[in-house]
Amino acid sequence: MENQGRQAERAQSGEETSTLTFEGGAYLDGRASDPSLLGWMQGSPPPANKQISFENGRSLNFPEIRWSLSHMRELVPTVAVRRGNGAPHVFVTLSATDAAAVAALEFTDLNGRRRRFDEALTDTYTDGIVVLHRGRLIFERYFGALQPHLPHACFSVTKSYAGTLAACLVHEGVLDDGELIPHFLPELRRSAWGSATLRQVMDMQTGLNYTEDEADDQSSSSSYMRACRTRPRPVGYDGPQTSYDYLGTVRKEGTHGQVFAYKSVNTQVLAWVMARVTGRSFADLLHERLWAPLGCEEEGYLLVDPAGVPSASGGFCVSLRDLARFGELIRREGEWDGKQIIPAPVLEDIRRGEKHPADGAPSRSSDYSYRSQWWISHDEFDAVEARGIHGQRLYIAPGAEMVVARFGSQPVASAAFIDPIIMPQMLALGRSLCG
Amino acid sequence: MENQGRQAERAQSGEETSTLTFEGGAYLDGRASDPSLLGWMQGSPPPANKQISFENGRSLNFPEIRWSLSHMRELVPTVAVRRGNGAPHVFVTLSATDAAAVAALEFTDLNGRRRRFDEALTDTYTDGIVVLHRGRLIFERYFGALQPHLPHACFSVTKSYAGTLAACLVHEGVLDDGELIPHFLPELRRSAWGSATLRQVMDMQTGLNYTEDEADDQSSSSSYMRACRTRPRPVGYDGPQTSYDYLGTVRKEGTHGQVFAYKSVNTQVLAWVMARVTGRSFADLLHERLWAPLGCEEEGYLLVDPAGVPSASGGFCVSLRDLARFGELIRREGEWDGKQIIPAPVLEDIRRGEKHPADGAPSRSSDYSYRSQWWISHDEFDAVEARGIHGQRLYIAPGAEMVVARFGSQPVASAAFIDPIIMPQMLALGRSLCG
Repeated sequence: MENQGRQAERAQSGEETSTLTFEGGAYLDGRASDPSLLGWMQGSPPPANKQISFENGRSLNFPEIRWSLSHMRELVPTVAVRRGNGAPHVFVTLSATDAAAVAALEFTDLNGRRRRFDEALTDTYTDGIVVLHRGRLIFERYFGALQPHLPHACFSVTKSYAGTLAACLVHEGVLDDGELIPHFLPELRRSAWGSATLRQVMDMQTGLNYTEDEADDQSSSSSYMRACRTRPRPVGYDGPQTSYDYLGTVRKEGTHGQVFAYKSVNTQVLAWVMARVTGRSFADLLHERLWAPLGCEEEGYLLVDPAGVPSASGGFCVSLRDLARFGELIRREGEWDGKQIIPAPVLEDIRRGEKHPADGAPSRSSDYSYRSQWWISHDEFDAVEARGIHGQRLYIAPGAEMVVARFGSQPVASAAFIDPIIMPQMLALGRSLCG
Repeated sequence: MENQGRQAERAQSGEETSTLTFEGGAYLDGRASDPSLLGWMQGSPPPANKQISFENGRSLNFPEIRWSLSHMRELVPTVAVRRGNGAPHVFVTLSATDAAAVAALEFTDLNGRRRRFDEALTDTYTDGIVVLHRGRLIFERYFGALQPHLPHACFSVTKSYAGTLAACLVHEGVLDDGELIPHFLPELRRSAWGSATLRQVMDMQTGLNYTEDEADDQSSSSSYMRACRTRPRPVGYDGPQTSYDYLGTVRKEGTHGQVFAYKSVNTQVLAWVMARVTGRSFADLLHERLWAPLGCEEEGYLLVDPAGVPSASGGFCVSLRDLARFGELIRREGEWDGKQIIPAPVLEDIRRGEKHPADGAPSRSSDYSYRSQWWISHDEFDAVEARGIHGQRLYIAPGAEMVVARFGSQPVASAAFIDPIIMPQMLALGRSLCG
């Protein structure tokens, strides 16, 4: 359970409150950090002190991140995930009355504070939220730099796309998840993955000498990002030049298949296996198997490393409605417009989940399990979740016939920042729709 | 006139010919330099010696450029030019018989050599070509790395998009082309443009201390590209950080308004004026005024500098059919699907052209003039042209009711490489359609 000390709290500064504190840090709050209000990247040219570039190292700082996450392609090289030439899928939209009811919904957060649904959005640095009920769009809001047509960084929500594609390929017999990784990728024989099965990689059950901490510049995940070129490289950088080069350097620590340990590099191994076996890049697979058949509205895109390899661990950027479409496909057990896009057994297997130790899991981790790159809540709605740092979330609640897609740009990476608010918020919303 | 010494000639190496020589350089020919054949960026991962990245400095080398020009967004940061949510415009396509007749067309190049239309495409490193006659698609071919949906680098064809938008804004009274540049951009008062009118900028009639030479790393245009970050910066680079910073450093040389002198920086000044006055970026203007109303098939994109400013001098990447649509709009005097997208007088003014000295003009320069960032051929079809380095061309021939859009990735920047072939090729095609 979340303790009071970790709670994000508004600082009390007289009548006006414009900062939040979290684990000792003070941050402009959701309203005060609005990127338009702050003038980031506005004007022709933006003033020098309001320019954000990858090179000047500002793009993932706060509050700059409030602009950057809606503009990733303007910062780094990317590859398109095409939507194809078909007519886009259109959501049935419910009346303004329904949306007003959602906005006014009250709930109690995990710290006992009473909140209104719409105010909670601002308090959690939401960039956008879409709520579907029985496939109909009942609530949609955009804040800050995000617009309906702009792809926003998904971060690790990307992993659930990769895991879903991999689970489909296993179901089809293209991949055998009992095989060891070197069966597919001989070049990883001497790495940590030399003795790991594909299933262990899919379920994050590998023993790796690898630390996952975005906030620590010396962590393994920061080194990995420098290899991917998604984090600036220092002058004279002579580390691994590509994501695959980095994977070859990761060594085993502990035992595979015994402990759940969330390590982003597993997903890049998974995508590499898919690329090697299918001859299609992650971008191609997403286009062919999801973007085109779903009738996505906008092109998505993936960040690429210096070898042109897309980042499957965290590099996908999609529009909010297209993220919601993916969630709705999962809720509908893979059926879309009368076609079975994902085999139902693939999703049944994911939804069952597995019980794992809690290391690295969400705040109420003891309840969660993890399967094929999805978080399984085992909550009252049998929800499955895709989760990304800085506030990205896809919450799919079959028991409430509800899907919530939300993007954010909160000051810190950790989900512990928003979970005490958005977890009860989603449960309250689900209950109101069931009521 | 082109002399024999500058002609691109096949090297005679027994039966097989696989290299071309041009001005002393020997290059793999159009067939032998096919990027798939050479294995550039193929496999997962591509072998290290077949990887192309912006950082490793290879992306604009030959033959790497044969892959890169169809994959610019995978190399550098870009911003989207959206197509909008409407149904795309569809070309009426003529029969295979018509296409076969075009392919078999024979013509004599400027060096007196007899050629077949389709063979000439390979010989000129064509990546793709679309021919419209009376708006119908009569011929379409793709080679190398280009595919119908992939945006390809336009290079200076970009300028004609910028000039057209600017000419529209002048026609609407939003811009007065008689004003001096500092009227719009006070920060350029002390630069070369301090005493230049907007019209002089639009027509490349400014006197600038600026050398335009892509092949010379020490030229002004290479320095400009480093400021734009479209050319790799050396370690410890401390020059201008953005395109606008660079513009402020350009000094006057000679007299404005007297001599035609093709200098790419003029177009970036022009786009800056438009952005300042309209409050819309070049990407926004292209979307609103061309991409959405034309029903373009694909998103285009623009390379951006570290301040997020799109490159209007050469940074546009579009699909070949969308380039053809723009050409067809010009041929139809601005009318599209019953709507006047560009005022007819704007295009009449461009088509009239102006006589200028030949410095920097196309090979048969004495016949050409230049107006609002377009090349006016004054040829038998009253053609106007947009031209970009390495073989980019939009040839609009009202007299033959014909539009030819072509992309290429030839070894050298200069149009002198292909003009002796493609200029008579287009005239022959126009005559065959009139016959």
